[in-house]
Amino acid sequence: MSLSRDREVDFGIILRLGGVAKHYEAGAVIMREGEPRTHMFYLYKGSADVVVKGREVELVTDGGIFGEMAMIDYGPRSASVVAKTDCEAVEIDEKLFLLLVRQTPFFAIDVMRTLVRRLRAMNELLAH
Amino acid sequence: MSLSRDREVDFGIILRLGGVAKHYEAGAVIMREGEPRTHMFYLYKGSADVVVKGREVELVTDGGIFGEMAMIDYGPRSASVVAKTDCEAVEIDEKLFLLLVRQTPFFAIDVMRTLVRRLRAMNELLAH
Repeated sequence: MSLSRDREVDFGIILRLGGVAKHYEAGAVIMREGEPRTHMFYLYKGSADVVVKGREVELVTDGGIFGEMAMIDYGPRSASVVAKTDCEAVEIDEKLFLLLVRQTPFFAIDVMRTLVRRLRAMNELLAH
Repeated sequence: MSLSRDREVDFGIILRLGGVAKHYEAGAVIMREGEPRTHMFYLYKGSADVVVKGREVELVTDGGIFGEMAMIDYGPRSASVVAKTDCEAVEIDEKLFLLLVRQTPFFAIDVMRTLVRRLRAMNELLAH
């Protein structure tokens, strides 16, 4: 195990541990800024736009996650996410999240990596 | 185990797994923006200022961590950290980091929580 290897979380594990995949049509709002959290999402297929105050800040592609901030700190959703293409996304609730952190360290590292990438992007935005 | 409980990482575990505590005098630069990463830090005693481009953005107190961004994505240090009081800080290298993620899920959640708190703070800064 290393931090440098970009190994992806195994989708099969998420389903075996109880994750539920849902289909979203292109254009559907998968989650909405300001709403309370119930779960985070693992994007299995398709791509989706992360939108903060009407501004597209990131494109999430398959294998990516979103909704993890509210999951971790119980705060309101910091962004909306809109399906750019037809999507399949798995809902990960708190129980499953904790199971994944315990049983698959790669999942924890993947979440951290996503958060760090978003922080670096914010730093860039602030620097200009 | 729950995400809502604010349980702190056990300092004893970090030492038992090989963490090395170092002393820093008030005013000492513990890490410097732009440098390559070698390890992250767990602040055991004291408090330290996180400084980005000459601006104090956060005060880290005992039990807090810093230097985790460069640890996770191999990027350059995004901030400097300066001891505000005399400090004791433990260096956590990649091997120890991975051990802690595997053996103490609370450590992983603590790192995530810190990253989310910093992201929310950046969002606030950008909103104004």
